[in-house]
Amino acid sequence: METLFLWPLIGGTLAIMVLIYLALDVMKRSRGNASMMEISDAIQVGAKAFLYREYIYISIFVAIVFAAISIVGELTPLGKDTGLSLQTGVSFIIGAFCSALAGFIGMSIATRANSRTTEAAREGGVKGALGVAISGGAVMGLGVVGISLLGLTFTLMAFWNEADRVASTAIINGYAMGASLVALFARSGGGIYTKGADMGGDRVGMVEAGIPEDDPRNAATIADNVGDNVGDVAGLGSDLMESYVEAIIAAMAIAVTLNAVGGGAMSLNMIMLPLLIAAAGIVCSIVGIFYIRAFAKSDPQKALMNGTYIAGGLAVLATLAIVMVFGENYTDDLATIFRGTAIEYGRMGIFLSTVFGIAAGAIIGFVSEYYTSHKYKPTRKIAENSQSGPALTVVEGLSVGMMSCTIPTIVLAGAIVASYWAGGFFGIAMAAFGMLATTGIIVSVDSYGPIADNAGGIAEMAHLDRSVREITDNLDAVGNTTAAIGKGFAIGSAAFAATGLLVAFIATARVNVDHLALANPPILAGLLLGGMFPYFFSSLLFGAVGKAAYAMIEEVRRQLRDIPGIMEGKAKPDYAQCVDIATKGAIRGMLLPGGLAIILPVVIGLSFGAEVLTGLLIGSLISGLMIGIQMANSGGAMDNAKKYIEEGMYGGKGSEAHKAAVVGDTVGDPLKDTVGPSINILIKLMAVISLVIAPLLIQEEVVVTPAVADQAAQVEVIQADAAVDAVAADRL
Amino acid sequence: METLFLWPLIGGTLAIMVLIYLALDVMKRSRGNASMMEISDAIQVGAKAFLYREYIYISIFVAIVFAAISIVGELTPLGKDTGLSLQTGVSFIIGAFCSALAGFIGMSIATRANSRTTEAAREGGVKGALGVAISGGAVMGLGVVGISLLGLTFTLMAFWNEADRVASTAIINGYAMGASLVALFARSGGGIYTKGADMGGDRVGMVEAGIPEDDPRNAATIADNVGDNVGDVAGLGSDLMESYVEAIIAAMAIAVTLNAVGGGAMSLNMIMLPLLIAAAGIVCSIVGIFYIRAFAKSDPQKALMNGTYIAGGLAVLATLAIVMVFGENYTDDLATIFRGTAIEYGRMGIFLSTVFGIAAGAIIGFVSEYYTSHKYKPTRKIAENSQSGPALTVVEGLSVGMMSCTIPTIVLAGAIVASYWAGGFFGIAMAAFGMLATTGIIVSVDSYGPIADNAGGIAEMAHLDRSVREITDNLDAVGNTTAAIGKGFAIGSAAFAATGLLVAFIATARVNVDHLALANPPILAGLLLGGMFPYFFSSLLFGAVGKAAYAMIEEVRRQLRDIPGIMEGKAKPDYAQCVDIATKGAIRGMLLPGGLAIILPVVIGLSFGAEVLTGLLIGSLISGLMIGIQMANSGGAMDNAKKYIEEGMYGGKGSEAHKAAVVGDTVGDPLKDTVGPSINILIKLMAVISLVIAPLLIQEEVVVTPAVADQAAQVEVIQADAAVDAVAADRL
Repeated sequence: METLFLWPLIGGTLAIMVLIYLALDVMKRSRGNASMMEISDAIQVGAKAFLYREYIYISIFVAIVFAAISIVGELTPLGKDTGLSLQTGVSFIIGAFCSALAGFIGMSIATRANSRTTEAAREGGVKGALGVAISGGAVMGLGVVGISLLGLTFTLMAFWNEADRVASTAIINGYAMGASLVALFARSGGGIYTKGADMGGDRVGMVEAGIPEDDPRNAATIADNVGDNVGDVAGLGSDLMESYVEAIIAAMAIAVTLNAVGGGAMSLNMIMLPLLIAAAGIVCSIVGIFYIRAFAKSDPQKALMNGTYIAGGLAVLATLAIVMVFGENYTDDLATIFRGTAIEYGRMGIFLSTVFGIAAGAIIGFVSEYYTSHKYKPTRKIAENSQSGPALTVVEGLSVGMMSCTIPTIVLAGAIVASYWAGGFFGIAMAAFGMLATTGIIVSVDSYGPIADNAGGIAEMAHLDRSVREITDNLDAVGNTTAAIGKGFAIGSAAFAATGLLVAFIATARVNVDHLALANPPILAGLLLGGMFPYFFSSLLFGAVGKAAYAMIEEVRRQLRDIPGIMEGKAKPDYAQCVDIATKGAIRGMLLPGGLAIILPVVIGLSFGAEVLTGLLIGSLISGLMIGIQMANSGGAMDNAKKYIEEGMYGGKGSEAHKAAVVGDTVGDPLKDTVGPSINILIKLMAVISLVIAPLLIQEEVVVTPAVADQAAQVEVIQADAAVDAVAADRL
Repeated sequence: METLFLWPLIGGTLAIMVLIYLALDVMKRSRGNASMMEISDAIQVGAKAFLYREYIYISIFVAIVFAAISIVGELTPLGKDTGLSLQTGVSFIIGAFCSALAGFIGMSIATRANSRTTEAAREGGVKGALGVAISGGAVMGLGVVGISLLGLTFTLMAFWNEADRVASTAIINGYAMGASLVALFARSGGGIYTKGADMGGDRVGMVEAGIPEDDPRNAATIADNVGDNVGDVAGLGSDLMESYVEAIIAAMAIAVTLNAVGGGAMSLNMIMLPLLIAAAGIVCSIVGIFYIRAFAKSDPQKALMNGTYIAGGLAVLATLAIVMVFGENYTDDLATIFRGTAIEYGRMGIFLSTVFGIAAGAIIGFVSEYYTSHKYKPTRKIAENSQSGPALTVVEGLSVGMMSCTIPTIVLAGAIVASYWAGGFFGIAMAAFGMLATTGIIVSVDSYGPIADNAGGIAEMAHLDRSVREITDNLDAVGNTTAAIGKGFAIGSAAFAATGLLVAFIATARVNVDHLALANPPILAGLLLGGMFPYFFSSLLFGAVGKAAYAMIEEVRRQLRDIPGIMEGKAKPDYAQCVDIATKGAIRGMLLPGGLAIILPVVIGLSFGAEVLTGLLIGSLISGLMIGIQMANSGGAMDNAKKYIEEGMYGGKGSEAHKAAVVGDTVGDPLKDTVGPSINILIKLMAVISLVIAPLLIQEEVVVTPAVADQAAQVEVIQADAAVDAVAADRL
C-alpha cells in the first residue's frame, strides 16, 4: 500500500486523540448543583432519545439505498458494465455510519458541556466558561474531520485497485453519499425539531402566559434546549462533514478522470493531494483551538476570531508546502471542450486555486456577519422599522436577506472563474476544498454557540445569580455572531462543493458537452425544474415546522390547563411529553422531503439522461444558493434586530417595537434554522447522488477518444473566439 | 407592399374602433352626485399627475437609450458591421411611445369609469355596474393590443426591406425594447406608488387611528385609490403589452434566422404568421368582451370566465384556420445543433405548439386561483394559522407561495419541451405567442378589478347606502379572483416570452452553442449572477416601498396632528400632499433598479460575450420565475386569508386572528403588487435588451455556413445519442 495513505491516517488519528483529551477535560469539570444537573440530564436524555429515533428511520433509508445500489450493481447487466457494485454500497454504509457516529459523539459531549459551562461561569467567570464551551464544541469539530477522514481513507484503502483508479474513486463516491443522506435527515429533522419546539414554546410562554424565555414553567423549555443541540450541533456538524467529504471526493474524481481521458497523466500524488491537505488542515485547526483555550480572557469574540484566522493562515502555508513537495504540473483535457485545446497547468495553479477558495469562504462569512449583526446598518434598519409594526419588520427582514445574496454570489462566481483560470476543473475542486480545509475549527467555533446558549438556559431555569446569566449571555451573543458566519460559510461551501461534484459528475458520466448547451430545450426544462425543486422542498419543511409548532402549542396549553400549580411554580410541567411531540413532528416531517430529494435525481437521470440531470442540478444549485443565503441571513438579521431592541433601543423590552421584532424573529426562526440549512444539504445531496449513479448514465460511443477529441478540437478552433485562444496560449 | 401586412392593420384598427365605442359608452353614463364626482376627480387628477411625472423621467431614459443605440449604430465602426442603426433607435422610440399611449388612454378611462360604476350600482344593480366596469377595463385591454399591433406593423412596414429580412426584423426588436422599458418603470413605479400609499395609509388609519379602510378622514385614501389605477391598470397593461409584442418579435426573429441560416427557406407567410394570429386574437377578444357585456346578470364571475373561455376557444379555431391557409412545412436548422440533423416540421406542428401555449396559460392561471382563493385549502390554512399569531400567518403565507411554484414550473417546462418537439425553436416561440393571443380580453378582465375596487372606495367615501357597497364588494371579490389569475398568467407568459426571446437572442447573436455548455465555468458564473440579480432587484424595490410607506405614515400622522377637526369630519385632510409624496417616492424608487436592469445585460454582454450573457439571462429567468410566482401567490393568499376571516371565520373582524391576518396581508402587499410584477418585466427586459445588442455580439467566423454545419453535424452524429436520432428520423 502506498505510503501516501499514511498522512491522512495520521491526521485523523491526531484529531481523535485531541478529541479524547478535550472530552475528558470537559467531563472532569463540576456539573454544578442538583438543579443544574437535573436540567442538564433532561436535555441529555431528550437529545439521545431523538437521535436514537432519528437514526432508526435513517437506517431504514440507508438499508433501502444500500440494497438498490448493490442489487443494480451486482445483479443487473447494467451494473456489470458500469462502476456500481456491492463495494459502492458498502462504502455508502460506512459513510452514513461515520456521519452518524460523529453526530452522536459531538452531541453527547455538547449536552454534557452545557451545565459545566454554567458552573464554570459561576466559579471562574468568562475565561473558564469559554474554555469549557469551546472544548465541548471542539469535540464536535474534531469528530467531524477526524472520523470522516479516517473513514474515507480506510474505505479508499480497502477498495483501492491501482490498476483501475477510476473505479476505485467511484466506489468512495458512495461514502460521500452516505454522509450526505445522514446530513439531510439530521439537518431537516433537527431543524424541524428545534423550531417546532421554539416557536410553539415561545408562542404560549411569552405571548399567551407572559412568562420569559427559558422559564421552567414552560413545558416546552427542555425540548427547546434539546433542539439547540440536535439542530445546531449535530445538524451543522453533519452539514459541514458532508461538504468536507464531498469536496475531497470531487477533487479526486476529477483527478482520475483527467487521467483517464488521456493526455497528461495524473499521478497518485495529485489524486491524494486533497487528503494530504485535509490532514494538514486538522493540525492547523488543533493549533487554533488551543490558541482559543489559552488566550481567551475578557474578549471571547476576539479569541474565537483570532483562533480561526490563525488556523486559516497556517492552512495556506501548509497547502503551499504540500503543493511544493507533492504537486506536479498537469494537463486538463476537459478544458479542451471549451478552449479548443488542452491546457497545461503549473502546480502553483493548485495552490492559487486553494487560496481563492479560502479567501472566498472568509469573505462570504464576513458578509453574513455584516447583514446579520446589529453592529451594522441592515439589522439596525429592521429594528427601526419595527416601530411601524410587525409587517414592516418582516418586509425589511426579507429584503435584507435578498440583498445579502449579492456579494456572496459574486464572490463565488468569481472564485469559480478564477480557480478555473488558475487550475482548470481540478482547480475548481481544489478551491472548494480550500474553503473547507479548516472545517475542524469552524465546526468547533460553531458548536460552541449552542453550548453557551444552553448554559444560559440552565442558569435561568436553575435560578442562578444574575451575574452568571450575564456571563453566559455575553458568551451567547458571541455565539450568535459565529453562528451567522458559520451559516454563511455552510451555504457558501455547500454551493462550492456542489459545483465540484457537478464537474465531477459531468466528467464521470462523460456527458456529451455539445448536448449540454443551455439553449437545448430539454436542458432548459431541467434547469427550470431544478430551480423549482428547492422551493417545493422548502415549502414541505415549512409545513412540517408549522405542524410541529402547532402540536407543541396545543400541548403546552393543555399542560397549563390540566396540571394545576404550574404557573405558581408548585407543580412541574411534563417536559418529556413535549420532547416526545417534537421528536415525532421532526421524524414525520423529514421523511417526505428527504425521500423526494433522494429519488428526484435518480428518476430524472434514468428517464431523461445525464444532460437533463445536469440541468436539474444547476437549476437547483442556483435556486438553492439564493434561498439558502436569503433565509439564513433574513432569519439571523431579524433575530438580532430583536436583541438590539432588547438592549434598550426604540423602547426596549415590552415596547410596541419589541412586540413587532418578536414577530419578525419568530418568522425568521424556521428560515434560518430549518429551511435555509436543509437547502445546503439538498443541493449537495442531489449532486452526490448524481455522481454515484453517473456510471449508469454513460452514453455509448461518447467516450472522448483522442481521435474524436481532435476532430472536435478542429471544429472548435474554427469556431472559437480568437481572444480565448490568445489567453490560453499565454498561460504558463 | 405585401398584402399580408393588411391583416394586422385591420385587426388593430378594429380594436381601436371598438375601444372608442366603449369609451364613449362609459363617458355618457352618469357620474353620480357631487360628492362622488369630487372624489373621482381627485383620483383622476392624482393619476394624471403621477403619469406625467413618470413619463418625464421615462423620457429621459428613452432619450439616453435612443442616443446610445443611434450613436453606436451610425457613428462607430462596430455599428456599420452590425445591424444596429438609427432605425433601431427610431423603432425603440415608437415602441416606448405606443406603450405609454396605451397606458395613458387605459388609465384615463379607468379613472373615469370608477364613479360611473358606483352610480350604475346605485341605479341598476349588478348588471349595469358590471357593464360599466368591464367596458372601462376593455378600453385598456383593446388599447394594449390595438395600439401595439398597429405600431408594430407600421414600424415593420416603414423599415421593411425585402432583400434583407434579418435586418428588417432586427430593427423592430427596438420596438419591443421600447415597450419593455416603459413597462419596467410603469410596473415598478406604479407598484411602489400603490403599496407605499396603501401600507402607509392602512398603518396610521386602521391600526393607529382606528378608522376603516377607504375612510375619507385618512389623508392617504385618494393616493391609495390612485395607486390601484397606476399599479394594476397601467402597470398590468404595459406588462402584458410587453409580453405580447415580445412573443411576436421573438417568433419573427426566429423565423428569419431559420431562413438565413440556410436549408429550409421560410417564406414571408411564415414570418407574418404571428401578426396574422394576433389580428384574429383581437377579433376573438372583442367577441368575448361583448359576450360579458350581454350576458352579465347575477353572476359576474361566471360571465367573466365564460367570456375569456369563449375568446380562447375561438382563438384556437382561428389559429387552425390561419395555419391551414398561410402555414407551410419548414426545416429547423437550429435543431441541427442538438439533434445531429436538421429536422422537417409540418405546418400542423405550429398549430399544436400554439395550443400547448394556450393550455399552459390556462393551467397556470387556474393554479394561481387555487393557491390564492379562500375557496381552497391553502388560503384557508393561512387563515387557520392566524389564530396562533402573525408569525405563523406569514410563515404559512410564504410557504404557500413557494409550493405554488411547483405546477406552473412543471407545466411551463413541459410546454417548452412539447412545443419544441412539435415545431422546433419556432414552435417554442409560437407557443409563447399562443399563450398571449387573447391578451385583449385578459387585460380587459384584469383592468376591471381596480375599477370595481375604486367604485367601492367611492361608495364608502361618499357615504352611499350599504346596498351600493355590497354590490361593489361583490364585483371587487370577483376582481380579486381575476387579478390572481391575471398575475399568474402575467408571470407565466413573461417566462415563456423570455424563453422565446432567449432563443431568438442565441439565433441572432449566432452564439457558438458548443461554448454554451452548462459546465463551462464562465457560463456557470453567468448563471449564478443571473440567479442572484432578481434578488438584488427585489431588495431595492422592497427598500423603495418601505421608504415610501414610511414617508406616507409621517405625513398622515402630521395631518392628523396639525389639521384640527379631521377626526370629527369637520376638516378635510390634504389629499394632494399625500398624492405628491407617493409620486415622489415611486419616481425616486424606480430609477436605480430600472437603470441597473437596463445596464446589466449590456455590460455583461460587451465585457464577457454572448455566452456568459446567455447564462445571465437563463439564471435570471430561473430565479425570476420562482420569485415572481412565489410573491404573487404568497401575497394573494394572505390577502384572501384576511378576507376569509373578515367573512366571519375564526372570530371575524377585530379578533386576534384578524389582527394576525392583517399583518400577513400587509407583508403580502409589496410582494404581490410591487416586487412580483416588476420581476416579470425584469426577465423580459433583460432578454429583449440582449436581443437588441445581439448584432454587436456576433462572433467573427462563427457564422454557421453549411460547410461548418456539416462538419459539426458529423462530429455530432458520432456523439449523438442513437435514441435521439431515431426519434428525429421518425418525425413527419
